[in-house]
Amino acid sequence: MTMKKNDDIEVIAKKLAEAENVLIFPHIVMDGDALGSGAALCEALRNSGKTAHILIEDKIPDNLAFLDRGFCTTDVDVIKDPDVCICIDCGDTGRFPKRAEKFMTGKTLICVDHHATSEPFCDYNHIESSSAATAELVYLLLRAAGAEITKEIAESIFAGITTDTGDFQYSNTTKRTHEIVSALYDCGMDFSKVSIELYENENPKKMKLQNMIVGSTEFFADGQLAMACVTQKMLKECGCTMEESEGTVSMLRSVRGVQIAIILKENTKKSIKATLRSKSVGDVSAIAVKHGGGGHVRAAGCTINDTLEQAKEAIREDALEELGYK
Amino acid sequence: MTMKKNDDIEVIAKKLAEAENVLIFPHIVMDGDALGSGAALCEALRNSGKTAHILIEDKIPDNLAFLDRGFCTTDVDVIKDPDVCICIDCGDTGRFPKRAEKFMTGKTLICVDHHATSEPFCDYNHIESSSAATAELVYLLLRAAGAEITKEIAESIFAGITTDTGDFQYSNTTKRTHEIVSALYDCGMDFSKVSIELYENENPKKMKLQNMIVGSTEFFADGQLAMACVTQKMLKECGCTMEESEGTVSMLRSVRGVQIAIILKENTKKSIKATLRSKSVGDVSAIAVKHGGGGHVRAAGCTINDTLEQAKEAIREDALEELGYK
Repeated sequence: MTMKKNDDIEVIAKKLAEAENVLIFPHIVMDGDALGSGAALCEALRNSGKTAHILIEDKIPDNLAFLDRGFCTTDVDVIKDPDVCICIDCGDTGRFPKRAEKFMTGKTLICVDHHATSEPFCDYNHIESSSAATAELVYLLLRAAGAEITKEIAESIFAGITTDTGDFQYSNTTKRTHEIVSALYDCGMDFSKVSIELYENENPKKMKLQNMIVGSTEFFADGQLAMACVTQKMLKECGCTMEESEGTVSMLRSVRGVQIAIILKENTKKSIKATLRSKSVGDVSAIAVKHGGGGHVRAAGCTINDTLEQAKEAIREDALEELGYK
Repeated sequence: MTMKKNDDIEVIAKKLAEAENVLIFPHIVMDGDALGSGAALCEALRNSGKTAHILIEDKIPDNLAFLDRGFCTTDVDVIKDPDVCICIDCGDTGRFPKRAEKFMTGKTLICVDHHATSEPFCDYNHIESSSAATAELVYLLLRAAGAEITKEIAESIFAGITTDTGDFQYSNTTKRTHEIVSALYDCGMDFSKVSIELYENENPKKMKLQNMIVGSTEFFADGQLAMACVTQKMLKECGCTMEESEGTVSMLRSVRGVQIAIILKENTKKSIKATLRSKSVGDVSAIAVKHGGGGHVRAAGCTINDTLEQAKEAIREDALEELGYK
């Protein structure tokens, strides 16, 4: 094992070039950036004649299904002894718990991520927290590798970037983000098709759930804190999975005066996942870290092993403190 | 008067440079592009020592108020005999009806627009229908004029571009759009502040109303038709005006399988406004025209002088027919 440090993207490109087969690990509860980045990388590796698969452990959200062009599998034996295991858009094995053991069997371990809370833990790591999306890093990686950015690869990268930047509105978006996207236009991508797949493809049951979640919103701290929840009862009533509650938190944040928006997801009676967002005041990763989670200043998450009511109270108190109300 | 033709942006820049005072005309029912483009131009003209004002005839929407840094006035006499009258993001006097007479008093008339339906009607015209936003054209105009793009000008241009491209998702977005935005980052713009003003500034009462409207959604034609309504009772319960129901129809259209989305607005017991949108199948203007309204294939509207229940039934029947269900 080499020392745990951050490496140049060229080093990662070289290590991938040396591999014959590569297993790609996006994080659980896949989002557009995790799957888009993984799909772009997988396709480029296959185009260069390598064996590559994306190993997953949970369901692909409906609106991201178009990104999986035969890449994803839940079969841990799809590659027996992988030359490289690479985790994408995540920086610790807790983000792919059921696949962690398989990950560690890779002869070479690589991490490409943009989460501020990720620490280099692999043989080779490229963690760039100032990057708006991991998909940007995959773009730079493919450029460094001299890989052709095909139409499909460009569309996967676009999907990763546009979802992780809130359509170029979140403060993580940079000049480079737009430069990369403008370059993707040269690759013939149909960004408009991607956008319809991502955003105009919502399950009607999901709309009902979203409505219920928004309806549960409570405001605190003179309207600066908005909190809502998703219970198992709500999921049952709508016929939805917990994954289908994704995205609702941004609706809470869009309310005037709201600085911190939180959704508490009752995964089980004693396991509550908190999704946290901030607008321009408050560091939500600070709240998440207190509960063993992580993320960014404006977007973070954690899991609390307690009842919904108790989790709600604990997170609310921390959020009030973050807003200077304690 | 010169011939009515399309001119290079450099010609427009030269004509503005020759003027001492300039009156700017955005279209009625201002949007982010009309006001953002106007504000950017007005500020640049003032920075170069000229007298410049934006003449308006209706209310500035709340979420665009930040763009007016002392530019807007309803006083037609703010400049007695304007050297230049320039209409922005519109290409005929019907788009600024109460100001049309004043517009025609300009010694030189200029039009800068990106609407496909606009024809050159001024002394000098720069109409570029392939441009995603008029704000892009104003950016190019200011560059051609050698004007400094200040932070505030950059933010106004960003506001115009991001609103008119649906946050870079609509098919009108181009490579150039992203190139221009990436250049705006060099001007020190705080795009995130702009985005929060534009989008994260929603009245909590509006969220409640939106939730109620979405909750009223009914699906027909195997989920291809989504219909919801806004009643006076709902408005009263949320403390909202009918204007605050704007935008909800796009939430209905974003549902998978929905081809036509309709919201019926009960303006009075016997006057129902229908807002219609289609995704990729169905011409909603055909439905609107049947009821004396109009619009485009993908967005239309009409008013039915009947009760909500009767209007709902009439519109539903027409929509089913449009979808081939009759």
